[in-house]
Amino acid sequence: MMVKAKEPVLIIGGGTIGCGWAAAFAAAGHPVQVYDPARDTVPRLDLVWQKALPVLERLGSARADVAPPSHIARLDDVAEAVAFVQEALPERLELKREVLVRVERHLPADAVIASSTSGLSPSDIQDALTHPERLVIGHPCNPPYLMPVVEICAGAKTDALAMDIADAVYSGIGKTVLRLRREMPGHLVNRLQAALWREAVYLAAEGVASVDDIEKAVTRGLAARWCVTGPTAIFHLAGGDAGLAKFFDDLGPEVEKWWASLGAPRLDAETRAALIDGVAQSPDLVDAQALAGRRDARVPDILNLLSGTEGRNGSKHYKREEETC
Amino acid sequence: MMVKAKEPVLIIGGGTIGCGWAAAFAAAGHPVQVYDPARDTVPRLDLVWQKALPVLERLGSARADVAPPSHIARLDDVAEAVAFVQEALPERLELKREVLVRVERHLPADAVIASSTSGLSPSDIQDALTHPERLVIGHPCNPPYLMPVVEICAGAKTDALAMDIADAVYSGIGKTVLRLRREMPGHLVNRLQAALWREAVYLAAEGVASVDDIEKAVTRGLAARWCVTGPTAIFHLAGGDAGLAKFFDDLGPEVEKWWASLGAPRLDAETRAALIDGVAQSPDLVDAQALAGRRDARVPDILNLLSGTEGRNGSKHYKREEETC
Repeated sequence: MMVKAKEPVLIIGGGTIGCGWAAAFAAAGHPVQVYDPARDTVPRLDLVWQKALPVLERLGSARADVAPPSHIARLDDVAEAVAFVQEALPERLELKREVLVRVERHLPADAVIASSTSGLSPSDIQDALTHPERLVIGHPCNPPYLMPVVEICAGAKTDALAMDIADAVYSGIGKTVLRLRREMPGHLVNRLQAALWREAVYLAAEGVASVDDIEKAVTRGLAARWCVTGPTAIFHLAGGDAGLAKFFDDLGPEVEKWWASLGAPRLDAETRAALIDGVAQSPDLVDAQALAGRRDARVPDILNLLSGTEGRNGSKHYKREEETC
Repeated sequence: MMVKAKEPVLIIGGGTIGCGWAAAFAAAGHPVQVYDPARDTVPRLDLVWQKALPVLERLGSARADVAPPSHIARLDDVAEAVAFVQEALPERLELKREVLVRVERHLPADAVIASSTSGLSPSDIQDALTHPERLVIGHPCNPPYLMPVVEICAGAKTDALAMDIADAVYSGIGKTVLRLRREMPGHLVNRLQAALWREAVYLAAEGVASVDDIEKAVTRGLAARWCVTGPTAIFHLAGGDAGLAKFFDDLGPEVEKWWASLGAPRLDAETRAALIDGVAQSPDLVDAQALAGRRDARVPDILNLLSGTEGRNGSKHYKREEETC
C-alpha cells in the first residue's frame, strides 16, 4: 500500500514545546526541521524524541518507519517545500514578530504559520507579516506529543483557508482540534486550568485541607469523571431527564451563591510558602521527575481507553456496556 | 479463610444518593438498611443496585457473596447493632435535624452519623442532637458507588474518634478519604468543580467556542492529565527541576493576571439559553442517558488504571515504565 507523503514542517524554536511538536509531527510521517540558533538544541531534540516516540507509538500516532526531526541553525537551510510552520518561541511579542518576519522570507507564499502562544493575540503577531492572512494560533497542551487537544484561533486578518489547513494538519497527526470563534487571552485550556487552580490555591492558603488532599480531590475524584463528562455535562446529568434546563430551575440561584463564595487569592509570600511546603509534604508530588514519568506512562493508557471505538461518522463514540445503562 | 463481619449500616433517605451509598456499603459486605417512608424507594433501591453491582465488581470493591440492601419504612425496624449511619436526605437543614433527632433514639450511643450534605455546616446539623459529638460530614462524589473520593469534616462539637471511625469505615469500602481541616461550604470537590464550571459557562456565554469544544478542552485535554497531575502538580512540573518556587518567580505575576481576567458570569436567561442550546447541538451531550451510561462504563476502567500497583506503605504508586522517564 502506498502511504501518502506528508508535507515538510518547520518548527521555530527548539525549547521543550518546539521539540515536543517536532516529535509529534515527525512520528506521524512529516519531514521536520527545527530552527534554533542555540547549540544545545540538538541534544534536547534527541532527548525529547527518545522520550516521545514510545508514547506516540502507544497512542497509535507513530508510523512504523519514521525519520527523527532534524536541526537547522540557519534559515538558509529551510527546506523549499515547507507547507506548515509551527512557531514555539518564548512568550514575547516582539521576539515572535521579529523572528517570523525573517522566517517568512524563506517560505512559499501559501505556507501556513501557526503560533504556539498561550497568551498573545494572533492579530498582534500577524500585523508584522508580509502575509498576515497565513497566521493562526495553534496552541497545544503540554507536552505536545502526548496531549490530544490543539486550540486554533484566527486573528483579524487570518484567511479562513489557513484555519482549515491548520485544522487538517493537526487532525492528520491525530489531534483533537478545538476552534475558537474569537480571540481570548489564554484561549480555552489555560483559562479553565487557571480557574481550577485559583480555587485549589485558595483552599490550600486558607488551610482547609493539605495540598496533597486538594490534589487528590482532582486526581482521585473529579478528573476520572471529567474524562467522560465535562464541566457542563455533569450538571446536565444532575438535572435528570430534563437536563440542564431543570438543573437551572432547581439550582441556578444556588450555583450563583457557590460562585460568589469562590476564593480570589493573591500569590503573596505566605501563599507561595504554603503551597511549596504542601508540595514538599506530599509523597506524590515531591519528586517532580518521577511525577512527570508517571504522567507520560499513564496518560496514554487513559487516552487510549477514552478514544475507544470510533463512530462511523467520525465523531467519537464509546462502546456501550449493556450492564451499566 | 474467615472473612470478618462488617458492621450494620443504616442509610437515611432512599433517593439517588442514598441508594448509591447503600450499594457501595452492601457490595463491600456491610448489612445495609435504607430508611425512607416513601413507597417508591424499593424499586429505586433495586434499580441502583442492579446498575451499581457490576461497576463495583469491576472496581474490585464487591465481595463474591453479598446481600442487597434492604428497605425499612419505620425507624422501629432499625437493626439493634447499627454502628454507622449515612444520612442522605434533601439539602434542608431543618429536615436533616428533625429526622436525625428521631433516628438517634434508635441508635447505640457510640454509633457515628455521617451526613452527605454538600452545602450545610456540620456544626449546624449536630447542634440538634443528643450526642452531637458523633456527627461528621461524609460527602461523596456522585454516584457514590462509582467515585472513590469521600470528604470528611468535623463540626465544632465533633469527637476526633468519630472522624477516625468514619475514615476507617470509608477506607474499608475502598474509598479515598480526604480530611477537611475546617468547615468550608462546598468542601473541596464542589468548590473546585464550581470554579471550573464558572469559567466554562463564561466562555460559552461570551461565544468564544461551542459548548461542545469547551467540554472537549476538558474531556480530551485537561482531564486525562489531571488524573495523574492535579491542579498544583501541573505548575510544579512547569517549574522544571526547581519546581513550584521557580514557577512562582518566573510566572507568579502572569498567573495573577490570568486570574484577574477570569469571568464572573450570571446565570441569566441569555446565558442559560446559550448553554441549553450548546448541549442540544453537541452529539456527545444531547442524550443524557447514553452519557451517564458511558460514564459508568468508562470511569471504572480509568480508576482501575490509575490505582495501578499499591505501594507497600499504603500510599498509591503507579508502575514506572522504564522507557518514559
